[in-house]
Amino acid sequence: MLTLYSYWRSTAAWRVRLVLNLKQLAYQQEAVHLLQDGGEQRHAAYRALNPQGLVPLLVDGEQRIAQSLAIIEYLEETHPEPALLPRDAGARARIRSWSQFIVSEIHPLNNLRVLQYLEGELGLDENSRNSWYHHWIKEGLAALEKQVQQHLPIRQGGFSLGNRPGYFEACLVPQLYNARRFNCPLESYPTLVALDKRCQSLAAFSKAVPEMQPDAVLDT
Amino acid sequence: MLTLYSYWRSTAAWRVRLVLNLKQLAYQQEAVHLLQDGGEQRHAAYRALNPQGLVPLLVDGEQRIAQSLAIIEYLEETHPEPALLPRDAGARARIRSWSQFIVSEIHPLNNLRVLQYLEGELGLDENSRNSWYHHWIKEGLAALEKQVQQHLPIRQGGFSLGNRPGYFEACLVPQLYNARRFNCPLESYPTLVALDKRCQSLAAFSKAVPEMQPDAVLDT
Repeated sequence: MLTLYSYWRSTAAWRVRLVLNLKQLAYQQEAVHLLQDGGEQRHAAYRALNPQGLVPLLVDGEQRIAQSLAIIEYLEETHPEPALLPRDAGARARIRSWSQFIVSEIHPLNNLRVLQYLEGELGLDENSRNSWYHHWIKEGLAALEKQVQQHLPIRQGGFSLGNRPGYFEACLVPQLYNARRFNCPLESYPTLVALDKRCQSLAAFSKAVPEMQPDAVLDT
Repeated sequence: MLTLYSYWRSTAAWRVRLVLNLKQLAYQQEAVHLLQDGGEQRHAAYRALNPQGLVPLLVDGEQRIAQSLAIIEYLEETHPEPALLPRDAGARARIRSWSQFIVSEIHPLNNLRVLQYLEGELGLDENSRNSWYHHWIKEGLAALEKQVQQHLPIRQGGFSLGNRPGYFEACLVPQLYNARRFNCPLESYPTLVALDKRCQSLAAFSKAVPEMQPDAVLDT
C-alpha cells in the first residue's frame, strides 16, 4: 500500500493525489499539519522520514520519495498505465516544461514558508504580500496561457493527452485553486480556466480537492 | 545541431551545458543578456521563441524546450547513452528528488528576477536581501547534505552514478557556485562541497563554468 504524507491545502501534495487517482492507485494518507505546533513538517519525527521538511512524501515499501514531480515521475515509471505523459519525446518535453514552469517558477514564490518569511522576517503588511503573490501569479499564468493556447486538443476542448488529462493537469488545477484563494483575477487566462473547469467534472479531480481530504479543516 | 539560448551566469542554463557536455553532444550557444536593455529575455523577439521569458531554451530542429529539467529529461530520452540517471526506479526517484529540491525549492527564491523584485518593488537594502538569500540557501543545503550523506558511493569519494557524475551533479555544482558568489558559508555541507570539488576536475565541468562561456563579461 502506498502512503502519502500530505496536508489538505498543500498544492504540491494535491498534484500527487491527482496522479494517484488518475492511475487508479490505492493509497492511504498521513496528515502533516503545516501550521500546528510551528509546523509538523519541521518536527524531528517527520524530518527523520523526509529531511527536506516539506510535503508531499510518498512511501512505497522501502522507498521514501520527496518532491511532487519526482514522485510523479516515479509513479509513471513504476505504474506506466495509464500513461500521464504523451509518447513522443518532443510532446513529453512540452508537458514537462509547462509543469516545471508551475512547479519551479510560480509555486515556490507563493508557498506557505515564503509567505511566512515575508510576514515574519521582512514584516511585510498584507497589501505588500498580496502584491508579491499577484505579481508572480500574473507573470506565470500569462506565459503559460500563451503556451497552452498553442496546444490544439486543449484549445478545442480536450486535454493534454487529447481525450484525457494527465501530468500537466495535475500541476495546473491546484495552482489555479491557489490563485483563486488569493483573489487573483483569472479572466486573462481563458484557456487555462476552461481546461481547469473540464477537469473538475472528473471523479479523479473532485476526489482530490483539499476540502475532501481527511485532514481538512473546513471552518478556517 | 542543438542550440542553447543561455546567459553565462544563469544557474539553470549551466545545468543544461553540463548535461550536454556529459553526453558529449555538440551544441552552439545564443547569448540572451539578462541585464542589458531591461533584460533581453523580456524582449518580444525572445518571447516569441520562449513565452516563459527565461533561459535556458534548447532548440532541437522544430522542438523548442524551456525549463532546465524538462530539457535534461528530453536529452536523457533522446540521447540515452551515457545515461545520467541510475536504472532502478527507486534510485532514479532519489536523484530526481534531490535535483528537484535544488531546482524548485532553493534556486527559485534566489534567482535574478526575485532579487530584482526585493530591491525594486520592496525596496529591501543589501543586508536584508543577503539575509533572504542566505536563509533559503542554508535551509536548502542543510537538508540536502543530510540526504546526500546517506548515498554510499558519494560518501566514499564517488559520484551519484558510482564512478561518474550525472543528473544530480549538473544541478548541484551551479547552485554551490551561486552560494559562493553570495558569500554563503559552506563548511556545514562537507559532503556536497567534496562532491563539487571532484566534479570540478573533470573536463565536462571545467568547460561549463560561466567564465568560459562566449558571452562571459569578466570584469564585472
